[in-house]
Amino acid sequence: MADETRKKIQGEESRWLEQTWGKAVKKFPERQPKFETSSGVELPPVVTPAGAPPEERYLERIGFPGEYPFTRGVQPTMYRGRHWTMRQYAGFASATESNRRYKYLLQSGTTGLSVAFDLPTQMGRDADHPRARGEVGRVGVSISSIEDMAVLMADLPMEDLTTSMTINATSSILLAFYAVHAQERGFDIRKLGGTIQNDLLKEYIARGTYIYPPAPSLRIITDLFAFTSREMPRWNPISISGYHIREAGSTAAQEIAFTLADGITYVQAALDAGLDVDAFAGRLSFFFNVHNDFLEEIAKFRAARRLWARIMKERFKAKDPRSCMLRFHSQTAGSTLTAQQPENNVVRVALQALASVLGGTQSLHTNSKDEALALPSESSAKLALRTQQIIANESGVADVIDPLGGSWHIERLTDELEEKALAYIQKIDDMGGMVNAISEGYPQREIQDAAFRYQTEIERGERVIVGVNEFVEEKEVAPADLLKIDPAIEAQQKERLAELRKRRDADQAARALDAVRAGAGGTENLIPLIFEAVRARCTLGEISDAMREVFGEHREEVVL
Amino acid sequence: MADETRKKIQGEESRWLEQTWGKAVKKFPERQPKFETSSGVELPPVVTPAGAPPEERYLERIGFPGEYPFTRGVQPTMYRGRHWTMRQYAGFASATESNRRYKYLLQSGTTGLSVAFDLPTQMGRDADHPRARGEVGRVGVSISSIEDMAVLMADLPMEDLTTSMTINATSSILLAFYAVHAQERGFDIRKLGGTIQNDLLKEYIARGTYIYPPAPSLRIITDLFAFTSREMPRWNPISISGYHIREAGSTAAQEIAFTLADGITYVQAALDAGLDVDAFAGRLSFFFNVHNDFLEEIAKFRAARRLWARIMKERFKAKDPRSCMLRFHSQTAGSTLTAQQPENNVVRVALQALASVLGGTQSLHTNSKDEALALPSESSAKLALRTQQIIANESGVADVIDPLGGSWHIERLTDELEEKALAYIQKIDDMGGMVNAISEGYPQREIQDAAFRYQTEIERGERVIVGVNEFVEEKEVAPADLLKIDPAIEAQQKERLAELRKRRDADQAARALDAVRAGAGGTENLIPLIFEAVRARCTLGEISDAMREVFGEHREEVVL
Repeated sequence: MADETRKKIQGEESRWLEQTWGKAVKKFPERQPKFETSSGVELPPVVTPAGAPPEERYLERIGFPGEYPFTRGVQPTMYRGRHWTMRQYAGFASATESNRRYKYLLQSGTTGLSVAFDLPTQMGRDADHPRARGEVGRVGVSISSIEDMAVLMADLPMEDLTTSMTINATSSILLAFYAVHAQERGFDIRKLGGTIQNDLLKEYIARGTYIYPPAPSLRIITDLFAFTSREMPRWNPISISGYHIREAGSTAAQEIAFTLADGITYVQAALDAGLDVDAFAGRLSFFFNVHNDFLEEIAKFRAARRLWARIMKERFKAKDPRSCMLRFHSQTAGSTLTAQQPENNVVRVALQALASVLGGTQSLHTNSKDEALALPSESSAKLALRTQQIIANESGVADVIDPLGGSWHIERLTDELEEKALAYIQKIDDMGGMVNAISEGYPQREIQDAAFRYQTEIERGERVIVGVNEFVEEKEVAPADLLKIDPAIEAQQKERLAELRKRRDADQAARALDAVRAGAGGTENLIPLIFEAVRARCTLGEISDAMREVFGEHREEVVL
Repeated sequence: MADETRKKIQGEESRWLEQTWGKAVKKFPERQPKFETSSGVELPPVVTPAGAPPEERYLERIGFPGEYPFTRGVQPTMYRGRHWTMRQYAGFASATESNRRYKYLLQSGTTGLSVAFDLPTQMGRDADHPRARGEVGRVGVSISSIEDMAVLMADLPMEDLTTSMTINATSSILLAFYAVHAQERGFDIRKLGGTIQNDLLKEYIARGTYIYPPAPSLRIITDLFAFTSREMPRWNPISISGYHIREAGSTAAQEIAFTLADGITYVQAALDAGLDVDAFAGRLSFFFNVHNDFLEEIAKFRAARRLWARIMKERFKAKDPRSCMLRFHSQTAGSTLTAQQPENNVVRVALQALASVLGGTQSLHTNSKDEALALPSESSAKLALRTQQIIANESGVADVIDPLGGSWHIERLTDELEEKALAYIQKIDDMGGMVNAISEGYPQREIQDAAFRYQTEIERGERVIVGVNEFVEEKEVAPADLLKIDPAIEAQQKERLAELRKRRDADQAARALDAVRAGAGGTENLIPLIFEAVRARCTLGEISDAMREVFGEHREEVVL
């Protein structure tokens, strides 16, 4: 736009603000004294071309789908080629029940698996560990050994689907369970596609399922980068996750910033370990939340893509365009679901899912309406999947790439979020990087402050949550078909473990664990040793303990 | 944007199309051989500033909210001032049941009433008419007299709410029931706010509940324009409706075109009857569908606003900006709801409702999930309302006016839809106007063709409807809580009518009907005569029959 046009529009905008809008507002005041996004971006009543980034910078700042800086999407054809992967996170009770649910979801049309593990599995404890009591199979499936993995994946075509595993401190062991089991069934692990979450930094920041201190955690992660780039080229060795940062109460800008700052730390660690950036960066993947603020969320995904591309190119000198692509999975925000009037959650999830698609997600989990009350029942999980199928097939939004690109409001928000996120990243750089920032409690505090503001707004009624602080119903009937976990699962799992320990070659298992221990103390890549231990039928708890002995455990210090 | 920039972007776009996109498409073909909207707008993979309308035309073509040509909305503050009216269409069985439902909806947070009438009421037949049998209270409430209206509105604060009535051939009588009842309760009819649908042309085109031929229908309509502009200044005497045109299978462009062409006819008829354009045009209101194609629907509302503004200013020389404002109610598309897997309808309705809000609707009805099976139950009507409340309060889309304005895709679509609609309107002008076009069957045929194409796409599986031609379930369980209409209603209504006829002053009633008959044969404004007849307790059927005797009945000729 010529300067002259911009000036003319600016002039008219001032006139409108003063005369038309200004007069109207005097007569009918606005609903709120102030309008702003979660990230504190102030919202004017309307955004015009004069308030938006100039189109002259289009080629540099926005560009084309599948090309740097990937603002409009990472693939050249996006959903015109094929829809995003509909990947419903599921897992509960035993491997048998979870396997049945996966088959149900695949038959209903999901296009990728996503495994939820129970807390003991995430914390490196076998199902028969005393501290596993009461937790076995509760928030996810209980997997203590390769034999459980065999049941979990029974009859599933492992080369023809992709599997995402939400696993962090024990990601190397679960990957070994998955890959060794696939090999034993005759599949080629080079052809296995999937993702392990394996993002420990966000565990220290927000989620809490860490075992080892940061340094050995980073070492396992870089070992996984090196191992998968060599042996499992279709596997994403990490899913750098903003999801839990957002669930803990962060703003959208913080979600971008802390996630990318974690990503910077992983890349730097891998470079420090001697890897070449273009050898692994193309397989880094991301995982974001999709929260309520429809427009801010769309802008968030676009801003995150552009910012990561710039970081990879400018800071890490990546040459391969793939290394600059922020590919991400997204999940609708569990924290926005309400136990009150759970049917309302279907609406929330539909809007969030749409934002994620308009933001260009690569894969998506839509939450089930009953997730504020229990694990999803079969029928509610199906409705969540149908939500994605309707968006994909009926809404038409998948027919044009980045259809909201150019919206003066969205482009302005994209710029503002990028700027705010960059400022956080610079601050973290100044603190010596994310590991230091975490140990000083910086991101944790920023998130807590944001969460507190949000909560206060709800308590004061400045932020309306339908069914919670407005449109409340006096008597609510709890849904009848909530999923219940059979408490017998725990005993069954213990029995299976006892049998496994009896049946296996005890010497071979002990030797394999010794090797893991020795490896942890040395510098060679740990992953092949873990694979060997899994082949020898060592359990999750045993392998974790072997590393615990060497690495120690991380304790959170409360920083005030 | 300078020509130079545009050329540079165009050049890069060509390069991208050939190299990046072109190569990718060869490897991974697109999902469909062709992508286009309902209106036949072809969709390129991505729209850039070079393919969008130039920002230089911003002031002329887009402008500011509350200002001509109203592309961005009719009010200066839009939803920052207050949210759209949440107006849930309801009515069934008797006035007593419907009154109870209205109270339930108001208590749940609706902000306006919308009355559904049964077929006999719409066709000017009392509940005791032989041809009313089996239809009394079935698709809406049965209202045969002012006494039914009194029950319908019992305890409701008529000056403090707005009421929309979906009534056409008998709109003058129902307005009289409403207004006279209000007067009898001591309200001032000058303060009554609301709308009668009163759009007969679309009845001939698509909906079928007409009684009289076009000429007397247009006369009643202009009489209502004149009467309300004088006596009921807060009442919208018409709601020019694209809703049913779309439900009959039209495209989005046809929906705009035929609705605005109907509007042109009404305005012309009022001018021909000697009214001043600015005396009535500011109270014309519109009613649109919100269909599945999310982005096209948003563009549709923006295009319709701009086109109507241009028509009023350029063709009808309106001076008052209010006369150029296309204010509209919208309703999610009933025809998109499926009897299969009715829970899926919650998702469809949420997406459609969002499109309507992003398109700047003034009021909105969200359909209930069970409407493909029955009239909405209480709980499903509440969930439909909650859908609007979540969009209003949680999604943030109400915080910025026309937030998608500037999107290259949306602006291009807006232009294309406006152009296509204008071409239809010119064609109708060439046929001598909409009344002629209808009698030649032109709009009917265009809609049928579009409906046939849509249906064929579904049958061939080129268009996926979730649960219907894909993701089908073998065994479906019908919902348990469907609304059933008590068949005793009909007998009760007959009894009430018999009592009314016994109780009233028969001579006074007969004289009032004679006056209506005489008025229909003359040229004076009919509406005060109908008000008098209503005061004399004449029934809906009696007043309609008095006019039938003079005006005759319209019969559709099938034009092949």
